Amino acid sequence: MKKISLLGATGSIGQQTLDVIEHHSEDFTLVAFSAGRNIEETRKIIHKFHPELVSVQEKDDALRLQAEFPFLNVTYGEEGLVEVAVYPVAHILVNAVLGSVGLFPTMQAIEAGKTIAIANKETLVTAGHLVMEAAQKHHVSLLPVDSEHSAIFQCLQGEQSKNIERLILTASGGSFRDRSREELKHVSVKEALNHPNWSMGAKITIDSATMMNKGLEVIEAHWLFHLPYEQIDVILHRESIIHSMVEFHDSSVIAQLGTPDMRVPIQYALTYPDRFVQLGSKRLNLVEIGKLHFEKMDLDRFRMLALAYQAGKAGGTMPTVLNAANEEAVAAFLAGKISFLQIDGLVERSLEQHKQILHPDLETIQQTDKETRIFVHSLL
Amino acid sequence: MKKISLLGATGSIGQQTLDVIEHHSEDFTLVAFSAGRNIEETRKIIHKFHPELVSVQEKDDALRLQAEFPFLNVTYGEEGLVEVAVYPVAHILVNAVLGSVGLFPTMQAIEAGKTIAIANKETLVTAGHLVMEAAQKHHVSLLPVDSEHSAIFQCLQGEQSKNIERLILTASGGSFRDRSREELKHVSVKEALNHPNWSMGAKITIDSATMMNKGLEVIEAHWLFHLPYEQIDVILHRESIIHSMVEFHDSSVIAQLGTPDMRVPIQYALTYPDRFVQLGSKRLNLVEIGKLHFEKMDLDRFRMLALAYQAGKAGGTMPTVLNAANEEAVAAFLAGKISFLQIDGLVERSLEQHKQILHPDLETIQQTDKETRIFVHSLL
Repeated sequence: MKKISLLGATGSIGQQTLDVIEHHSEDFTLVAFSAGRNIEETRKIIHKFHPELVSVQEKDDALRLQAEFPFLNVTYGEEGLVEVAVYPVAHILVNAVLGSVGLFPTMQAIEAGKTIAIANKETLVTAGHLVMEAAQKHHVSLLPVDSEHSAIFQCLQGEQSKNIERLILTASGGSFRDRSREELKHVSVKEALNHPNWSMGAKITIDSATMMNKGLEVIEAHWLFHLPYEQIDVILHRESIIHSMVEFHDSSVIAQLGTPDMRVPIQYALTYPDRFVQLGSKRLNLVEIGKLHFEKMDLDRFRMLALAYQAGKAGGTMPTVLNAANEEAVAAFLAGKISFLQIDGLVERSLEQHKQILHPDLETIQQTDKETRIFVHSLL
Repeated sequence: MKKISLLGATGSIGQQTLDVIEHHSEDFTLVAFSAGRNIEETRKIIHKFHPELVSVQEKDDALRLQAEFPFLNVTYGEEGLVEVAVYPVAHILVNAVLGSVGLFPTMQAIEAGKTIAIANKETLVTAGHLVMEAAQKHHVSLLPVDSEHSAIFQCLQGEQSKNIERLILTASGGSFRDRSREELKHVSVKEALNHPNWSMGAKITIDSATMMNKGLEVIEAHWLFHLPYEQIDVILHRESIIHSMVEFHDSSVIAQLGTPDMRVPIQYALTYPDRFVQLGSKRLNLVEIGKLHFEKMDLDRFRMLALAYQAGKAGGTMPTVLNAANEEAVAAFLAGKISFLQIDGLVERSLEQHKQILHPDLETIQQTDKETRIFVHSLL
């Protein structure tokens, strides 16, 4: 029985992780989880999975839940996230929180020697060098959960990394792939949230529409697979059937395919290096699909991807700024405060105004993250 | 330095194997090879690769070559094939002869403990149970060279075979994929030899046009990967870019892709489990290709594939009959003696008239092979 702790249980990845655990209740058990402010959902999870430890965002909610569930260990806030992350009996931590708030608990879990299934891409983007350094030092495995990185990870099984020519990340193109920048001037939040292939949370769906999601994934891939940006390519593949590929020096390409269903990569991270039967996922039927399309990625049209490559190559605190500015800009767009095209404008201005610091430590990163958010707010 | 012996050096796979050896002359050396009646080409290979042992088909040719190359060990005939197959200093045997003539040398090489890169699919089709039994007994690795089986073999690296849901072999459809059976009545040999994607020998190109090639590959896959026929599917994929796929129980599909170039799987078999840089092979560019198509395989249109599944599932001597009848029918078509559609007619009649023998030994297989050829000739 594999004991699982889960950060971000009420989000999209969190919910799908619970679905996988429920489908394989003889193999997996949830021992600890964190949630935000959705207390109704938190109650449901407690009833269904009987964990030992729960953390919520607010103290008041924690006190109320503690009164309702006297035999449960209830905690809250940032410290609560860390308690879940390092929960001693857990064999694996699924980190599915959103944004750079996932960084500190990840670092703590690494120091506690936990295997981490990482869906929180912002952690690797904002502080990849620190996370990978710590993971190596503590001999901790980081198992990717993002469908693209899981695909690459699967393609690399049994292979030697010295033989990699390049990684090829596929991008669906998001909600607005068939619109020009001109046509994006007046798009609504609702339109932006309508992703053609994947059912995901709001933030990542907007990131898909701006192509920042692919940018974050490029930086994530750089760290997870120890490859320079020159060996990481992105192509447009509108069906999201090929989830990503690896080209080797001998010109052979290995790809991972499937219907778009996050439960498959989540489950793979939990069963790795084994595979379990997937219950409830639609099997791939290429005959039914008929055609797969591939197009060049246009970096002028998708400026955010160009910015992400620039920030990634520059290194130091630049990816931290990229990520923090993007988080704030997307939140502002979702709140109706700015237009869609202002998102990349804010990210670009944030990168321009920042004085890069090389080899930042955790404190510097947290400080940069905070300052960037203040800067973005000053422009709203 | 890996020492290589090669059966069938003047054929299409043989020539491409020599190309790979030449490109990596610091890693590979040719120590022994066999050729048929093409003595001019045999001379060229001797001059270029300086092997220690050469076998040709006819005694007269052997004597002449021996006189020309006094320091070379020259031999001939079936015994010569075996001498090359078991050549003591070779680390790996590439078996690229055509047809069931490859069976006996393969069995001898297995008993001599040689690792075998097997491009001679008829060997596995005609006597798969004997070959696999012997390989297991002598702890010999059979490395696939066919692009489809190499693809599956690559997809299975780092995976557990218990997790396989099914193999998906891709078929280009061959020269006549867009013609109905009615339209095939009067096609010429020249038209049949015009394969849309692959540059291959005459026999395999005709086998591609009749879809028997895919049938032989299904049987080959059954033996190489120890899977029942119910777990081996075929789909039409006209671009031949995805060379084959493996679907796992978790609904994840791993595929191997590349431009159609036999040197890639040949080289992989020689470098396995490592990969070397491929010199001279065009890299895959999916953006340039734009679209990949997938269609259902029509077993009424491609009767040979249906016959192959039937013979494979029946087992015993039936695949031997299938293969021998096909070899003779294709030879008759290439010689202008029968029409294209008579090929599958002859194979079907051969299967119908044969009294199946279960668990045949090598002698029974060789006898069945001979009788089938006589039967086909009696119908010409």
